[in-house]
Amino acid sequence: MIPLEDARQRILAAIRPTGPETVPLGGGWNRVLARPVVARLTQPPADVSAMDGYAVRAADAVTGATLTITGAAPAGHPFAGEVGAGEAVRIFTGGFVPAGADAILIQENAKAEGPRLTVTEGVAAGRWIRRRGLDFAEGGELLPAGRRLTARDIGLAAAANHPWLTVHRRPRIAILATGDEIALPGEPLPPGGIVSSNAHALAAVIASAGGEGCILPIAPDDAGSIAELAGSGGYDLLVTTGGASVGEHDLVQKALGQDGFALDFWKIAMRPGKPLIWGRLGAMPVLGLPGNPVSALVCAVVFLLPALARMQGLPDAGPRTVPAIAGVDLPENDQRADHLRATLAPGADGRLVATPANRQDSSMLAVLASADGLILRAPFAPALPKGEAVEVIPLAALGV
Amino acid sequence: MIPLEDARQRILAAIRPTGPETVPLGGGWNRVLARPVVARLTQPPADVSAMDGYAVRAADAVTGATLTITGAAPAGHPFAGEVGAGEAVRIFTGGFVPAGADAILIQENAKAEGPRLTVTEGVAAGRWIRRRGLDFAEGGELLPAGRRLTARDIGLAAAANHPWLTVHRRPRIAILATGDEIALPGEPLPPGGIVSSNAHALAAVIASAGGEGCILPIAPDDAGSIAELAGSGGYDLLVTTGGASVGEHDLVQKALGQDGFALDFWKIAMRPGKPLIWGRLGAMPVLGLPGNPVSALVCAVVFLLPALARMQGLPDAGPRTVPAIAGVDLPENDQRADHLRATLAPGADGRLVATPANRQDSSMLAVLASADGLILRAPFAPALPKGEAVEVIPLAALGV
Repeated sequence: MIPLEDARQRILAAIRPTGPETVPLGGGWNRVLARPVVARLTQPPADVSAMDGYAVRAADAVTGATLTITGAAPAGHPFAGEVGAGEAVRIFTGGFVPAGADAILIQENAKAEGPRLTVTEGVAAGRWIRRRGLDFAEGGELLPAGRRLTARDIGLAAAANHPWLTVHRRPRIAILATGDEIALPGEPLPPGGIVSSNAHALAAVIASAGGEGCILPIAPDDAGSIAELAGSGGYDLLVTTGGASVGEHDLVQKALGQDGFALDFWKIAMRPGKPLIWGRLGAMPVLGLPGNPVSALVCAVVFLLPALARMQGLPDAGPRTVPAIAGVDLPENDQRADHLRATLAPGADGRLVATPANRQDSSMLAVLASADGLILRAPFAPALPKGEAVEVIPLAALGV
Repeated sequence: MIPLEDARQRILAAIRPTGPETVPLGGGWNRVLARPVVARLTQPPADVSAMDGYAVRAADAVTGATLTITGAAPAGHPFAGEVGAGEAVRIFTGGFVPAGADAILIQENAKAEGPRLTVTEGVAAGRWIRRRGLDFAEGGELLPAGRRLTARDIGLAAAANHPWLTVHRRPRIAILATGDEIALPGEPLPPGGIVSSNAHALAAVIASAGGEGCILPIAPDDAGSIAELAGSGGYDLLVTTGGASVGEHDLVQKALGQDGFALDFWKIAMRPGKPLIWGRLGAMPVLGLPGNPVSALVCAVVFLLPALARMQGLPDAGPRTVPAIAGVDLPENDQRADHLRATLAPGADGRLVATPANRQDSSMLAVLASADGLILRAPFAPALPKGEAVEVIPLAALGV
């Protein structure tokens, strides 16, 4: 058994980012930039009005003064002339401030009668003008490579005049569930059989992280079938479930071995999820997850999500945790890093309270589904009294 | 100006959930259940082994005893016979516990030589057996209607034998950007023009919430064009941007009015985003957002996301906030609920520290994009010293 963090680092060290892909602007949402977004123009392109009102010379626009309206400058229709002494130009939010003007008199502070404008409250020079380049300047880097794009980023890239974005190609992950006992949902169940759930859950985990999961046909407990399906190729990573334990019916290592499988490690000091395979089949990395659904999903959070992050060029590949306090006394831990399925609720002082489920059996998918997060317990962690600080991996926020 | 919360409640009161849609299991990820998922079977379907080892009678399997191996029960291949006195059946994780056995002797605690099995460490009755129905029982509700499905939920629905799920249809939202001054990214810019960014950012916001945004062609500042595009129909909601202010060039209300637009309210006591229109064009609700990109996005977070949640049948439609402490002194607030663009970073005591950006101008998209969240400041909130508690809407976690 190797320590969890060693395992994760060995996995990450073997993962390469996918190459760049050009996508239309809107398709860039939630993708990871492969090339930075650089401003193609200056925003605003000129000094513009921040309000609806009148472009004036502040020196003239004192309370009680009367000005002459000589034109209009709505957004998109710049005023070609100049604002002279005693003059005002009608302007609207976003309109270019005409030459000669140095302030915007907001319409609430003026009264127009035909071409005559009476100033009811004077204005200081510079007021309500957004200066050229206030938002950004041409040539400036707005979004760095390696950033997962938010909706705000899409808006910013649009404003900077980018109809296309260059992002990392979505990782394609093959998912191979093995076992004589499993059948697809809705299909006839063999005697003693159960419905296959891991492949579907893992495909959703992969989708949540921005990858594409491809569910291969279920492989029976037969080395030839496993080898044939695993070797189908065209993927950035092969994830298997089941067959990673020490039993005679755990065939994945044996099956892959026929095709030159290079094992890096298996068995990790963690719970749930001790039996985990990591290696390489030709050029394709292989992650062999346990068959128990809870073990498979926890291992996916701990190892597969960081791998998917790394594949997409994200800089920080560790799983995000949030601080919380233990809702009950936690017993001392043994040599395996534990991941307690827990609910999260705000406590009296605003801090999150993490309370582990009563049953932590690795076959209990319903308990996992109703959990909000995983309390991390380090190997040999001493007993921890209720109210002490713990770190929790939140799950629903990940879409997991 | 009406209070923000009143506005949100009036918007939500007018929103109806979309109808149900049947999707394949995997397509249910991140969708909202319209009908509960009920277990179609019992899991595990029988008492099963939690380990690889031997099914035995605990009374016989005392340390030093020798048993006779009479068969095997791998997962998916139940043993047809019975475990008699002095007998053991080879079993693997997930295998059905054969009749007669009442414990699993794990293989680490036994030594097999041909059919002879020596017990090296005895086992107690019931050990390493997962009881029938430990995870869930046929007929039990596993996932309620109104739940946004996680990857774990997809796994649970699969295990409960559901190849299909019934979810709320994705809301279809039309997005109409207006303004003579805007052009699509990459298109020739008119004189005094800027690139349209709101529609693209809003489409991404809608995607982040599980809706489908349809970007209509840009409408010039012309009532007829706006009316024609707005009336194209087939949408659950029309969102406009720009033209919601009081200027003469703000035409949206006027344009919609030609087609029997029923205004509910406009102008909200909030910042950024005072000018906001809410009403109905025939049967279609209309949300008119301000043209400033920061105002439009903040209003989308505050009003559009809750509306999208309600459309998808989610029970809690309020925007999620996280507790934090102010990173600087905050001045007293005026009558408008404020949303300060802020960075979030963990503080020394583990609590989040929210620090507002120096500039809060509603045209500064780059500042918004680099923010982590929005500090909420209630109308007339008194000055707040650094270190005091604030509530923050986190943005990146929403994909916004």
